[in-house]
Amino acid sequence: MIRITDLKPRMLMGPGPSDVNPRVLHAMSMPTVGHLDSQFLLVMDDIQHMLRDLFQTRNELTLTFSGSGMAGMEACLDNLVEAGDKVLICVAGVFGARMKEVAERAHAQVTTISVPWGTVFRAEQVAQAMDQHGPFKLVGIVQAETSTGALQPIQPISQVVHAAGSLLLVDAVAGLGGVEMDVDGWQVDACYTGSQKCLSCPPGLSPATFGPAAVEAITQRKTPVQSWYLDLNLLKKYWGPERVYHHTAPINLYYALHEALRIVLEEGLAARWRRHQQAYQALHAGLDGLGLKYLADPACQLPTLNAVLTPAGYDEATGRKRLVNDFGIEIGAGLGEYRGKAWRIGLMGEGADQRHVDALLGALKQIL
Amino acid sequence: MIRITDLKPRMLMGPGPSDVNPRVLHAMSMPTVGHLDSQFLLVMDDIQHMLRDLFQTRNELTLTFSGSGMAGMEACLDNLVEAGDKVLICVAGVFGARMKEVAERAHAQVTTISVPWGTVFRAEQVAQAMDQHGPFKLVGIVQAETSTGALQPIQPISQVVHAAGSLLLVDAVAGLGGVEMDVDGWQVDACYTGSQKCLSCPPGLSPATFGPAAVEAITQRKTPVQSWYLDLNLLKKYWGPERVYHHTAPINLYYALHEALRIVLEEGLAARWRRHQQAYQALHAGLDGLGLKYLADPACQLPTLNAVLTPAGYDEATGRKRLVNDFGIEIGAGLGEYRGKAWRIGLMGEGADQRHVDALLGALKQIL
Repeated sequence: MIRITDLKPRMLMGPGPSDVNPRVLHAMSMPTVGHLDSQFLLVMDDIQHMLRDLFQTRNELTLTFSGSGMAGMEACLDNLVEAGDKVLICVAGVFGARMKEVAERAHAQVTTISVPWGTVFRAEQVAQAMDQHGPFKLVGIVQAETSTGALQPIQPISQVVHAAGSLLLVDAVAGLGGVEMDVDGWQVDACYTGSQKCLSCPPGLSPATFGPAAVEAITQRKTPVQSWYLDLNLLKKYWGPERVYHHTAPINLYYALHEALRIVLEEGLAARWRRHQQAYQALHAGLDGLGLKYLADPACQLPTLNAVLTPAGYDEATGRKRLVNDFGIEIGAGLGEYRGKAWRIGLMGEGADQRHVDALLGALKQIL
Repeated sequence: MIRITDLKPRMLMGPGPSDVNPRVLHAMSMPTVGHLDSQFLLVMDDIQHMLRDLFQTRNELTLTFSGSGMAGMEACLDNLVEAGDKVLICVAGVFGARMKEVAERAHAQVTTISVPWGTVFRAEQVAQAMDQHGPFKLVGIVQAETSTGALQPIQPISQVVHAAGSLLLVDAVAGLGGVEMDVDGWQVDACYTGSQKCLSCPPGLSPATFGPAAVEAITQRKTPVQSWYLDLNLLKKYWGPERVYHHTAPINLYYALHEALRIVLEEGLAARWRRHQQAYQALHAGLDGLGLKYLADPACQLPTLNAVLTPAGYDEATGRKRLVNDFGIEIGAGLGEYRGKAWRIGLMGEGADQRHVDALLGALKQIL
């Protein structure tokens, strides 16, 4: 039997979770209070206000789901889609493909378009698909594709999606807090993230926000949301002034998110995006020096997730094991068509600094 | 903006969450490691072993869902039921009614039987319903009905359910760790609980176990589970030897559960049930002395949840507010037909001792 206090700490530089600030761990360890305690309702109010700042939105329906980022994806599709609704999913990697699968399980009628891994969609491609196969109730796309490290520009996509009268759902799991996301400015109808990436909170929560058109779609449903646990028509009464008991929120994780969001906003969004960009540039230069090539098109490289090809013939799994065992650094393996051929290096939240970059580059020099 | 470290601690004597042992809070605050870290996989293995002891089962498929107890209920129904399957749900309070609703959202064809609040089912009633309206794929019942404080005997129900060839699903949310549950001995096919009740772990996890017939039903499904996040055919590959990445587990909550389960098993199940029984007897005697009457039939009173009628004309909400503000003690309100007319007092996990009982009785003397 392991003792939790004996676990060896890691420097987390994979695709998430990222390193958690001790302030957040400390807040999380405060005594649990009840989910209807007036003090806890204030914690929820604060979280809502801070999430609005983070998503850059005035959306009333801004909250966190009590599950990981995948619960957030599922919540969005389960709430926005009814059986038979036509949706278009843009697939540029594992998480786009996952969105297709989750939409199908929500009994949507799904059309997909795809681009090669490591590239992103041009707005015309989306417009053309909507023209040919639409109209669609909803278009889903991933902003920061964790499997490839490609950053999808959202604003031009939003324009064509709204021109065609559809709702836009954006997965911001690996991006929010590390790269720009302007929910109101870009007119994103629904957007979700995970707590454990660029927010540097422990995993287990999925903050999300829903604009007026999305709320209208949810309110006007003809059929119940298939998930009771993730049903926004119920959840909004717990987060709203009614305070109707729904599920028992994971109190201590909410404490952690509260403190993590305070840290994000103390730094400021623009400063935070800049820091992620600077860490990325330092890492990129160092990886170049080691002869490691990025998987994604340089024109759309995501700073928070660096997917690089491992040298031909090199056993990437052994390399990762050495990084963990000899240096205490965790990075991620390649996914899908890059399994066994790539590493995924995260620079997220607390991990996006020169110290992390130098530690990893130093270790890579030894093991390559 | 609130500071989490400024929150006033409470003595949690409502229907959950219950007081959390400082050992658990401390374990939870250890640095986050990755969800595929070999150290974390050992944590998961330990959790599985300890959950088998807790549920008294050898079931291979024993794990925790990464969501609250309601996610566990939804997971069981989503996995065990396919659209059109006939299920029988036994309703004796809010959580039985909830099970009906969740089964309907899983597109089951649901029949319900019910008994008055505060009473439990006799096996003959269930047998008769199965005879009249069956056959059913599954029968769902709540062991410890948190809304009424009635304890449903499971073993006789199990006999009639299996005689009719159905699967038995038991909600053990408010009971497990506080009253007996013998999954193998009683032949319970699927059983789930919540982390925040008699296990005294923070909320956010739902441990569950599935016997061979349940696993067979899940494996042989003709349609995908409607929830990707809760799909046991995927989850079992993450918990099993394959270790296939599914979702990012809420690492620190798993730490907490690991430590909470260690505490449960250090004490021993029989000793723990005895302690809950003793605390209940002390509370019951004290409440009698104050003239407060229990809501449930005394023959089936659940020791872990004491629902008592508040005196006629007494404003129960003001009473609860005084308990919190003047004494730092949280108890729960009545639900459903007992809203405004009852209190629900939990004696769960860390809260099932003389100290809690005395503190509450002392406070009640002042406010009544």
